[in-house]
Amino acid sequence: MSKSDPARSATGGPGDARLSRASVQRFSLYLRHLQRFVREGVQTVSSGQLAEILDLSDAQVRKDLAYLGNLGQPGIGYPAQELIAALRHRLGIDRTWATVVVGIGNLARALLRHRGFEQQGFQFVALFDADPHKIGQKIEGLEVHDPRRMAEVVAELQAVLAVVAVPAEAAQGVTDALVAAGIRGILNFAPTVVRLPEGVSLVSVDLAVQLEQLAFLVQLNQGSDKPDVEKQGGLLDTP
Amino acid sequence: MSKSDPARSATGGPGDARLSRASVQRFSLYLRHLQRFVREGVQTVSSGQLAEILDLSDAQVRKDLAYLGNLGQPGIGYPAQELIAALRHRLGIDRTWATVVVGIGNLARALLRHRGFEQQGFQFVALFDADPHKIGQKIEGLEVHDPRRMAEVVAELQAVLAVVAVPAEAAQGVTDALVAAGIRGILNFAPTVVRLPEGVSLVSVDLAVQLEQLAFLVQLNQGSDKPDVEKQGGLLDTP
Repeated sequence: MSKSDPARSATGGPGDARLSRASVQRFSLYLRHLQRFVREGVQTVSSGQLAEILDLSDAQVRKDLAYLGNLGQPGIGYPAQELIAALRHRLGIDRTWATVVVGIGNLARALLRHRGFEQQGFQFVALFDADPHKIGQKIEGLEVHDPRRMAEVVAELQAVLAVVAVPAEAAQGVTDALVAAGIRGILNFAPTVVRLPEGVSLVSVDLAVQLEQLAFLVQLNQGSDKPDVEKQGGLLDTP
Repeated sequence: MSKSDPARSATGGPGDARLSRASVQRFSLYLRHLQRFVREGVQTVSSGQLAEILDLSDAQVRKDLAYLGNLGQPGIGYPAQELIAALRHRLGIDRTWATVVVGIGNLARALLRHRGFEQQGFQFVALFDADPHKIGQKIEGLEVHDPRRMAEVVAELQAVLAVVAVPAEAAQGVTDALVAAGIRGILNFAPTVVRLPEGVSLVSVDLAVQLEQLAFLVQLNQGSDKPDVEKQGGLLDTP
């Protein structure tokens, strides 16, 4: 995230306690499992069930869900649909986010075909690529535009989020153009640091970092040189 | 990570203090920036420089790097090459990890073309896909094998890690086959929960979760319904 992190000065949520970044990541994971439970016909879920699936303590789950209000009933559990609605509201996905994608290579194609995005409220509305051979093509039903038309297209489609899947050396230029066009949040897959002005949010996904974390865990498991690692229930902990 | 997390019972590293999962993620990020510094001709790096780039406190950086031993010199900084070597050793990437990829769609193709993996010690050695049209094809120089040959190929190539990029419904079956073949760590991109036996490590990357985290941050930035989010310096914080 950029230095503009508003969380530093934001006031507290319910109970005025601090909501950790790890909690926010777990919200996404609770939501995923609750949606599956509901598909399977489950109506009420206990904190113990969620704790078991996500390998967390029961107390941790109850603490996280307390941020959403008093939804749980002792001895009964949480109404699954209400919990889903509360999680979607808190995550900000009880609305549709118009999203553009810049850099239409294999990764972008994989993202465009990912069935989970639209279900969670992310609607891909336009694609951009600087390659003249790609401009004008339709990929997964969306036209690839010339990046020079970014401001116009973003405004017309009222896009708010952007996925950046360009090579590292192009990432800052693309990011600057997206910000100038009015984009408010960027999901960056380019393996580099991008700088953003105040008020624009960034989530970076470096796929090599994920593999390094795996190597570290396998090395731990192999018993050579074992440091102690604290359990956090973040993305990397998820079974 | 699975319930077999060895970190729960592992003893401490240098100083016997707890090494958090977030610290391990930051190791990858320090490494990335140090490698760039070295490419730019820099020989000595201060904790302040790393703190500035990663938007962390100076004290946090010094604490993280103290796990690597006494490498820093007061008033001078850290020798970049030595710090890189120490980070690679601690992360377990001062060796080569033979890695297979299962499910050869757009995501796998993007990963195979990612220039950063081989540089960090991950060598893709074999591909698997159940699609008869893909079996026998060469993708980025590697042959696509029939998954029924997994045990044989994994043993022959002494593969240790696997990237799983198959549809959700196929993920558990593929994971079971990989484990039976002797794979010790799995990077899972399938948007589902996979269960692993003791002793096999898992890192899951759910791309929809990343977009949800971005939506949450943008919502925060827009000032509607601001909970307090603690700064963690993990992947999501990285500028």
